[in-house]
Amino acid sequence: MSLKGNACIGQSGGPSIVINASLVGAVQAAEKSELVDQFFGAANGVSGVMNEKMFDLFREDDEVLKAMRYTPSAALGTCRIKVTEADVARCMEVFKAHNIRYFFYNGGNDSQLTCHQISELAKQSDWDMRVVGIPKTIDNDLVVTDNCPGFASAARYAAAAVQFAARDAMAFGQAEIVEVMGRHAGWLTGATAVGRKEDWMAPHLVYLPEVKVDPDKFLADCEACYKQYGYLVVAVSEGFTFAESQLATTSDKVDEFGHARLGGVAEALGKMVEEAIGTRVRTDKLGNLQRCFAYCMSDVDNEQAYAAGYAAVEKALAGETDIMTTIVRNSDDPYEWEIGTTSLMSVADQTKLVPAEWINADQNGVTEEFIRYVAPLLGKTPPQVPMDIPAYPVFQRHMVEPKLEKYQRAK
Amino acid sequence: MSLKGNACIGQSGGPSIVINASLVGAVQAAEKSELVDQFFGAANGVSGVMNEKMFDLFREDDEVLKAMRYTPSAALGTCRIKVTEADVARCMEVFKAHNIRYFFYNGGNDSQLTCHQISELAKQSDWDMRVVGIPKTIDNDLVVTDNCPGFASAARYAAAAVQFAARDAMAFGQAEIVEVMGRHAGWLTGATAVGRKEDWMAPHLVYLPEVKVDPDKFLADCEACYKQYGYLVVAVSEGFTFAESQLATTSDKVDEFGHARLGGVAEALGKMVEEAIGTRVRTDKLGNLQRCFAYCMSDVDNEQAYAAGYAAVEKALAGETDIMTTIVRNSDDPYEWEIGTTSLMSVADQTKLVPAEWINADQNGVTEEFIRYVAPLLGKTPPQVPMDIPAYPVFQRHMVEPKLEKYQRAK
Repeated sequence: MSLKGNACIGQSGGPSIVINASLVGAVQAAEKSELVDQFFGAANGVSGVMNEKMFDLFREDDEVLKAMRYTPSAALGTCRIKVTEADVARCMEVFKAHNIRYFFYNGGNDSQLTCHQISELAKQSDWDMRVVGIPKTIDNDLVVTDNCPGFASAARYAAAAVQFAARDAMAFGQAEIVEVMGRHAGWLTGATAVGRKEDWMAPHLVYLPEVKVDPDKFLADCEACYKQYGYLVVAVSEGFTFAESQLATTSDKVDEFGHARLGGVAEALGKMVEEAIGTRVRTDKLGNLQRCFAYCMSDVDNEQAYAAGYAAVEKALAGETDIMTTIVRNSDDPYEWEIGTTSLMSVADQTKLVPAEWINADQNGVTEEFIRYVAPLLGKTPPQVPMDIPAYPVFQRHMVEPKLEKYQRAK
Repeated sequence: MSLKGNACIGQSGGPSIVINASLVGAVQAAEKSELVDQFFGAANGVSGVMNEKMFDLFREDDEVLKAMRYTPSAALGTCRIKVTEADVARCMEVFKAHNIRYFFYNGGNDSQLTCHQISELAKQSDWDMRVVGIPKTIDNDLVVTDNCPGFASAARYAAAAVQFAARDAMAFGQAEIVEVMGRHAGWLTGATAVGRKEDWMAPHLVYLPEVKVDPDKFLADCEACYKQYGYLVVAVSEGFTFAESQLATTSDKVDEFGHARLGGVAEALGKMVEEAIGTRVRTDKLGNLQRCFAYCMSDVDNEQAYAAGYAAVEKALAGETDIMTTIVRNSDDPYEWEIGTTSLMSVADQTKLVPAEWINADQNGVTEEFIRYVAPLLGKTPPQVPMDIPAYPVFQRHMVEPKLEKYQRAK
């Protein structure tokens, strides 16, 4: 069962605050084994594999690797690519040319599908290879796993930001709408409710993308809260939609997957609320900072991301393949967890929405169960996070010598 | 010289991360004196004075007061009011009715002007009273003082955010434009340059509102940096303007002073840059979080804010009036400072812009002198700042009994 050769790891999709913790976990697990000769980091995910842009992570400085565990955003570079059959075939050629026997891919459900496709083709082409996915997405929408590394730190940013912005709104006795990432799944937006310990505290209203909002009730709820508490804080998902009609906030631009770029929801709602309740409404779109604001790193999240990467390598070395590592929750309070695994097919292309029973009856908040789920994940900033204006390291990138013809992707 | 009676303090204008440190400093200085009977906090600045909405800060819980020092945004409530002569006269009536002999006002240059007007009217009406301003503005645009409490913590947020967002842009090999507060003065935007220790680091380009930007050079500079470094990070002030024409980013709404509400500069520039250099450009508007994101509180800033409030009371008790407390810089490295004073007239209605010689020759960055000025202010997060999802305290607000007829402001 012991398989000797090279390994390769890639990072995919939107970066997160702890994605590099998974990378460092994987490298440090591989360093302990005799089976891995070289451990290639693919520059910009599968795009780096296809183009043979890879560098040996074992040659990177140990101190840099240690610091990278606490550095936000994909240090290997990332990509958003919908891989074709030809792309997967090309990857296989590259794996063979560089004797890559282990492939690890850190990403969301699209990336786990890519992983599975590679695993399948390896089997078909008799290339003895082990493929393990590592979960990552700030949206927290992968099934099976308790949560997705990257989510908790982003949630901590969003939840803290809402409390800070709330004080600003209180100081003026005005209203504030905070726009949170999450196109389809409301995990991040819902997490902002953790800070509401008393009724008067923010956020007073929370709208997940799972809910189609009634415009009249929305404005009535805003007005009622504003009157009752003397200020108003509303958290809305970027995927906020009204029941009847969509808010005219999608831009004409589309992302790499053909999804319309969202945003501007808070601003559009702000204008409506301002007219309806007659107080100034400030709006803040949390934007990209949600996934990179490292002061908000959760120690729980970092630990889980590291463990998910570390275990991925251990499992692969032990002979497992076509799986993704998962977080398994054993208890809520105290929060206890361990690493598990699931088949790639069980998670690929699936989306875990917030269950309807975790959304309150008024459809403008979350239940106690939601809070019980999310609260223990938020943790605190690990002491290793640089709290000055950080000068983060970069990898030296000793690139491999390409062995194949250049690859031209079909359009 | 010793004057016995009540005191009153108000917070004015945009809140900051450390404005409550000045408040707590003032209260703790007053507690040590026999001269102050009651220390009123005016709810929402002069508006609270005019409407007799004031509460005795000496009756607030000591633990709450201690926690308030590390709580962002004006705990008394704030206001943006352009006071009229009638308003000042009304304030004087209230001061007399409640035997207020000391007035402290914490704000920017508008607020210092209000202070001076009150001081003048007190003299004219033979009301023995001492009026001391306490500096505050995240824009850092008050003259005389080395810096303005509130600025350094906001600068730390902006500078850190740029480093975090830079890693996100690097991960994609794309571009990022960060929009920073500062309508006329570029102190905050310039402060983001502190993080650029090497040429390849962010922010590559920094545009202050003091500079009228040439559109062709702007795009050429963006393209050159992107080509050279493989990613691009640009920091722009919300007051960014082109030399020939203004960017069409002012909204049709105006604020309480009749200033157009700004914003959307990054988004407008992002579209231009995206077209010009052909890579995706992400944009983040730092927004209100700059002035309330307490994880980024600077210990230097908190210390100075506290000292400026504390000294304001000490000076007033010692007989000084018609002054504002200031920060005096004695040396850059190590950074040494002390509290000074200046006349209210010397700061009222003045604006300190970034001096032309602190902007680089290419007009797209700041000089070493700017960095030497700003770097020591940024400090680190004080250990007292709650780094969980904070549940901040509120004052109990034992309100005074109004003694006058209701006040109707002239429209």
